[in-house]
Amino acid sequence: MAIDIEISEVGPRDGLQSIRSIMPTEAKKAWIKAQHEAGTPEIEVGSFVPPQLLPQLADTAEVVRYATTLPGLRVAALVPNRRGLEGAIAAGAQKVSIPFSMSETHSVRNVKKTHAQMREEIVRCLELLAETPAERRPAFEVGLATAFGCTIEGPIPEDRVIRMAADLVDLGVAEVGLSDTTGVGNPRQLERLARGIWSACGRERLTGVHLHNTRGQGLANALKAVELGFTTIDSSLGGIGGCPAAPGASGNIVTEDLVFLLEAMGLRTGIDLEALFAVRELVQAALPDEELYGFAAAAGLPLGFTGAAA
Amino acid sequence: MAIDIEISEVGPRDGLQSIRSIMPTEAKKAWIKAQHEAGTPEIEVGSFVPPQLLPQLADTAEVVRYATTLPGLRVAALVPNRRGLEGAIAAGAQKVSIPFSMSETHSVRNVKKTHAQMREEIVRCLELLAETPAERRPAFEVGLATAFGCTIEGPIPEDRVIRMAADLVDLGVAEVGLSDTTGVGNPRQLERLARGIWSACGRERLTGVHLHNTRGQGLANALKAVELGFTTIDSSLGGIGGCPAAPGASGNIVTEDLVFLLEAMGLRTGIDLEALFAVRELVQAALPDEELYGFAAAAGLPLGFTGAAA
Repeated sequence: MAIDIEISEVGPRDGLQSIRSIMPTEAKKAWIKAQHEAGTPEIEVGSFVPPQLLPQLADTAEVVRYATTLPGLRVAALVPNRRGLEGAIAAGAQKVSIPFSMSETHSVRNVKKTHAQMREEIVRCLELLAETPAERRPAFEVGLATAFGCTIEGPIPEDRVIRMAADLVDLGVAEVGLSDTTGVGNPRQLERLARGIWSACGRERLTGVHLHNTRGQGLANALKAVELGFTTIDSSLGGIGGCPAAPGASGNIVTEDLVFLLEAMGLRTGIDLEALFAVRELVQAALPDEELYGFAAAAGLPLGFTGAAA
Repeated sequence: MAIDIEISEVGPRDGLQSIRSIMPTEAKKAWIKAQHEAGTPEIEVGSFVPPQLLPQLADTAEVVRYATTLPGLRVAALVPNRRGLEGAIAAGAQKVSIPFSMSETHSVRNVKKTHAQMREEIVRCLELLAETPAERRPAFEVGLATAFGCTIEGPIPEDRVIRMAADLVDLGVAEVGLSDTTGVGNPRQLERLARGIWSACGRERLTGVHLHNTRGQGLANALKAVELGFTTIDSSLGGIGGCPAAPGASGNIVTEDLVFLLEAMGLRTGIDLEALFAVRELVQAALPDEELYGFAAAAGLPLGFTGAAA
């Protein structure tokens, strides 16, 4: 089936990294399998970071290897540096994202690198990718983290974000993503940033957004992104997630509510909503101590509701 | 100060009618006073319905009389019929809304009237308004309830909503409002309904929306409304509210999150967000057994955030 908007489920990475519970590997596999079967085209299944930093994601290589056995699923992973990228390539990840925080303070706190050091790390990642045989080379995206503002620095100048995106593209980065890491963004800001980056780098360089729901603004920003022409939206089942290095920045946008929004508007996601609601129950059972967010699953589908494909 | 978007706080009516707790009259007055002082331009303070049906709102006449003493506040009330309108006028309400459910099944269940009977009731309301001296005559709006769908009937044909809006305007109704009573609406549907009604009735006849957050879609729909040019949005402090006659239809959009959205986008509401967050604490203290919704108040304002007026 053709898809209009591609949902990238980040719960197994962004969600699980920011909660206290550690989900057993088998439960992660069951989640990923069930969400793949519900029609999710892409899942970010883990992060290649040292296990002592994020013990919740210590099994990422195994989870990536498992996920690549699921037919048609695009398996994504996050890496903080070239060393992580090596692990992701070895495990067979098909897409890799590396966050580059537009707030230098946040960058230093999150990955212990200044902007200059982080830029150098990305150059080293590009070199590794160039050396990797095409059939094993993952798609590579630099996430413009804290692009909408930082909990430590405050507002981030929009021209800085646009300039840094253009610099990355000049370095050879094929794709950048806009990340509201701290949940402070608004739709007009999203539009200004997107238009600025498109103007500086070309539209094909920026097609995805990563939004948080920290202040309840997630779906409004997602709607704006869709109307602007973004085609990939990150979201997290039950809205779990956040960033351990940005105090107060918790809560991704809820996959269930986002898919409902898109399907109700007639935009095809390829995802079966009832099946997605069942995945939520599976995840809640595996994380009995965690609160899941969102409304659509509890309310259920409206009487007579038909998805976009109907 | 000039205002771009007028927030109509419906918590004291829509919120309190749908929860079990009965808020004491003095607590209602304190809420209304505090929210007025925070800059809210309009508050729907109650409903003129028989007290045995909604004991939570039995003190509406007294609350309206009190609210009209607050300088500059537009005091709104809901009425189900001409008898309620008589009470609203006697108490001094400055704006009156009457819901007309686009679902006849819901209309019969909610106010025990078919569409023909409800139309006749509105004619009788218009007659009463014509007989009322101009200085005591409230603004009068017919709310097109369940315009986006009904929990009993399912989808509501859009041409029915547009036709009934046009009929009401032909009868002499100055203003209609679009109500997603059951929280099933989506932004594209909102746009189709608005354009249809504007085309049939004129833009000045429809300037306000009443949205629910039952499936988490409230702010996305509100964003669309603002972008289309709506200038009044109903919302409820802490998102309390719903409709007792529509099973599963609970949860208005959250005033705090909505005001954050608008002010962040540079749209002036006249509302001080920190003061609004303090009202929330006051309401929670008065309703200790009720769950308040929303994210902005808990997360707080972003570092360096300035409202639209700054």
